[in-house]
Amino acid sequence: MEEKFTNATKLYEEYRKKQLANRFVGFLVNWDSQTEAPDGCFSERGRQMEVLSEENYKLSTDPKIIEAINILFENKDSLDPIMQHEIIEVKKSTDKIVKIPMEEVIEMSGLLASSQNIWAKAKNENNYELFKPTLKRIIELTQSYVKHLETPKLKGYNILLDEFEPGFTVKDYDAFFEALKKDLVPFVKKVTSTTLQYNDSFATLNYPKEKQKEFSNIIQEVMKYDKSRGLMKESEHPFTSGFGTSDVRVTVHYYEDNFISAIFSAIHELGHATYEMQVDPTLDTTFSGGGASLAMHESQSRFYENIIGRSPDFWRPLFPKLKEIFPKQLKGVRLADFIKQINKVENSLIRTEADELTYPLHIMIRYDIEKLLINGDITVDELPQVWNKYVKDYLGIDVPSDREGVLQDIHWAGGTFGYFPTYALGSAYAAQIHRAMKKDVNIKKSLEAGTTVEINQWLKEKIHKFGATKYPKEILKSATKENFKAKYYIDYLIKKYSKIYNIK
Amino acid sequence: MEEKFTNATKLYEEYRKKQLANRFVGFLVNWDSQTEAPDGCFSERGRQMEVLSEENYKLSTDPKIIEAINILFENKDSLDPIMQHEIIEVKKSTDKIVKIPMEEVIEMSGLLASSQNIWAKAKNENNYELFKPTLKRIIELTQSYVKHLETPKLKGYNILLDEFEPGFTVKDYDAFFEALKKDLVPFVKKVTSTTLQYNDSFATLNYPKEKQKEFSNIIQEVMKYDKSRGLMKESEHPFTSGFGTSDVRVTVHYYEDNFISAIFSAIHELGHATYEMQVDPTLDTTFSGGGASLAMHESQSRFYENIIGRSPDFWRPLFPKLKEIFPKQLKGVRLADFIKQINKVENSLIRTEADELTYPLHIMIRYDIEKLLINGDITVDELPQVWNKYVKDYLGIDVPSDREGVLQDIHWAGGTFGYFPTYALGSAYAAQIHRAMKKDVNIKKSLEAGTTVEINQWLKEKIHKFGATKYPKEILKSATKENFKAKYYIDYLIKKYSKIYNIK
Repeated sequence: MEEKFTNATKLYEEYRKKQLANRFVGFLVNWDSQTEAPDGCFSERGRQMEVLSEENYKLSTDPKIIEAINILFENKDSLDPIMQHEIIEVKKSTDKIVKIPMEEVIEMSGLLASSQNIWAKAKNENNYELFKPTLKRIIELTQSYVKHLETPKLKGYNILLDEFEPGFTVKDYDAFFEALKKDLVPFVKKVTSTTLQYNDSFATLNYPKEKQKEFSNIIQEVMKYDKSRGLMKESEHPFTSGFGTSDVRVTVHYYEDNFISAIFSAIHELGHATYEMQVDPTLDTTFSGGGASLAMHESQSRFYENIIGRSPDFWRPLFPKLKEIFPKQLKGVRLADFIKQINKVENSLIRTEADELTYPLHIMIRYDIEKLLINGDITVDELPQVWNKYVKDYLGIDVPSDREGVLQDIHWAGGTFGYFPTYALGSAYAAQIHRAMKKDVNIKKSLEAGTTVEINQWLKEKIHKFGATKYPKEILKSATKENFKAKYYIDYLIKKYSKIYNIK
Repeated sequence: MEEKFTNATKLYEEYRKKQLANRFVGFLVNWDSQTEAPDGCFSERGRQMEVLSEENYKLSTDPKIIEAINILFENKDSLDPIMQHEIIEVKKSTDKIVKIPMEEVIEMSGLLASSQNIWAKAKNENNYELFKPTLKRIIELTQSYVKHLETPKLKGYNILLDEFEPGFTVKDYDAFFEALKKDLVPFVKKVTSTTLQYNDSFATLNYPKEKQKEFSNIIQEVMKYDKSRGLMKESEHPFTSGFGTSDVRVTVHYYEDNFISAIFSAIHELGHATYEMQVDPTLDTTFSGGGASLAMHESQSRFYENIIGRSPDFWRPLFPKLKEIFPKQLKGVRLADFIKQINKVENSLIRTEADELTYPLHIMIRYDIEKLLINGDITVDELPQVWNKYVKDYLGIDVPSDREGVLQDIHWAGGTFGYFPTYALGSAYAAQIHRAMKKDVNIKKSLEAGTTVEINQWLKEKIHKFGATKYPKEILKSATKENFKAKYYIDYLIKKYSKIYNIK
């Protein structure tokens, strides 16, 4: 028995090393594909990714490895807590992986190697038909994936939701969104019927890209982004991608007629990057590095972006620097006007450009549509019409083009369904975390000194350093001394926007 | 027998697919490492590369694969000519690979993952000591590599030379360099004792990087570089790196006080890229894509850089465009002055900045030193002194710093010994190819129309499309109707520089 366990440990560690090397490759290929790979390389690249994916699949389904994982799982009580948590999660995914036929895994991987590029082209040309066949096949393979994994307890869309936020089901999300709808929808109506009195013409002037880059560098300094372990680049859709704690990269997209966009993309992505970089580096050689879950990851990016980044305290020392870089464009603009501009609420088309208050409505659209798509209740042919109808119903506006509608997000092109709802949940986590942080940190004082370093430090100790060694709900509870409550999110939003919009 | 052969073919094709996928990974990791990876990622990256290298090694030494290769080799007469050539070469390298112990392969791979970064830092800080321990270990592993591969016929440095240019030994290179020394050294003395009469002050003015990039774009257009299958970026040392014909990338390095450097780096690297891109694309799925040999590759880059790129015909339509981009810096500069500047001969320190005529002397320094290093006749402690002595002997100048001396080249940091001599051989191939091309193409007319398209086309048909399906000597012979002759190179240089320097 002793020997069997020792051998299983050794085999598992070998397996883990190889898998981490494969993840390293995946990280680099994805980074390159999304930032600079030439258009003409993608069909060849798809072929290579199929080969690599086939090898990875063979490794993950090697009966010897699966046996080793089973032995460790059976003896999990003799493992240290970190390893115990890891093996429970690994056992879950190998139980899953053996249920998906290899040819489907390989096909999906080959598809995803080029799909994001096809999507970018389709979006660019406002041509849904160009993307449709790829999306259709991605959905079919996802539906098949769900079918293979269904259990008597967990069915349909729940399978995908559970992968991104363990323990959160359609029932939980329905309840969460119902709570938001009940209290927020009437509040949003009040807010959008009020107009903020200020001159907003500065927001749409021309802000040259090179100058915007200069300001991105200042944001990196304020947030203490460690450039020796990362870099900032451009891509169609901003994202963060890293390998371990020693290489964590971010991208933004600069719009010359909307300079505010890249500022908050940068803060958002640097929030993700701060999380990744502050994980205990000894976890780099395990599967327990990185964030605890997607919602926990989004809680960090949204905490920095919305709660910190859109506050007057954050901008008091920074706004003069922004004016130095754009003296003409921001001539005569007061900090108070700028704060109004970055917290302006309006029913708009683009999720990534949506304000903090209406953002959850964008998520509800995607959540409802994903349920329909995965359950097969609508087809990709109907999708643009369905999209437009939901936008009209929730946001009250017409969608003038698919580029600003169904083609706006990269996620489905990346094969990710069940991911969107974690964005809204992340915002709710962030509000609860903010409430707890305030008891320990003088956030106002820290920000007025021109840096997030004390905030980073609190998050490191309470959340980041644990990586994925615990479940998100455990981390949330230990950091905030409470279970998850949607109430704090609703309270935070109503308090903040009542003040800005002077609503009693 | 029939079945055994069919199975071997199937196994070999599977193996080739996996190896090509591994090459794809190597291409991307190298590209990232040399262009943008953050400093802090390299030790972790080294660990991942060791794991990947171990897997690759296991694949290449799998007894089933080796058996399959042996079966195909024994039955090579029944293979088509391309496959026959490929299997002969593959057999050679598997015969080699089984002789190198796995731990040495893994150690070298781990070392090389970080060595180029260490070298760049050492060069930047002019600190040879920083690089020395890494270089020492690279040389020890290379010596050990050589020992493992020695045969009664082929010993020492020859092992490395043969890998880069099959069939070229110390004896051949000694003869080649002796011929150059005999005719060129006295000629170089005549040239360097003559001074060109013109005002060269424009050459060292400040040329902003962004403007230099603009001109690089024009060069890309002139040379018909297909940007849908490649991109140009910056790195410490310019290079070309590609995967198949669908993704061929180049880098340059811009010096604001030496604008001519990046121009010729660009032409040089685009010469390499043109070769790679013009290979028959059906070879992408085989091991017979890419260039026929290093010298053949260098013959193409040097053909474009020196024979074409430094000719008045090339610059006649292009020089006005250069003046448009740099109107202040090039005010009053005549084409004739510019041509003198880009063909100025002087005994200088930096190989990559050396002129066409003294360049072979720089190669001789490296060739002689590599022989000493690999044979263990000098140590890494003595290396900077030995380097400086050779520079004094061949070029007649003192080396003021290691940055401009032994640290100037990336090659040894990349574990490549035996590579340098192919640069000089490539120039000699280029002269012989030029002589043949002139019979078919009106080069002057073509260049004056502002494009290299007819030259590209001739090279594609005579050289590029064959990829590595034939030996370089066969390709040279079929393209030029002659065996290799050093004479054409010497004739070309003496004729060209006699005219420029007005030497009778």
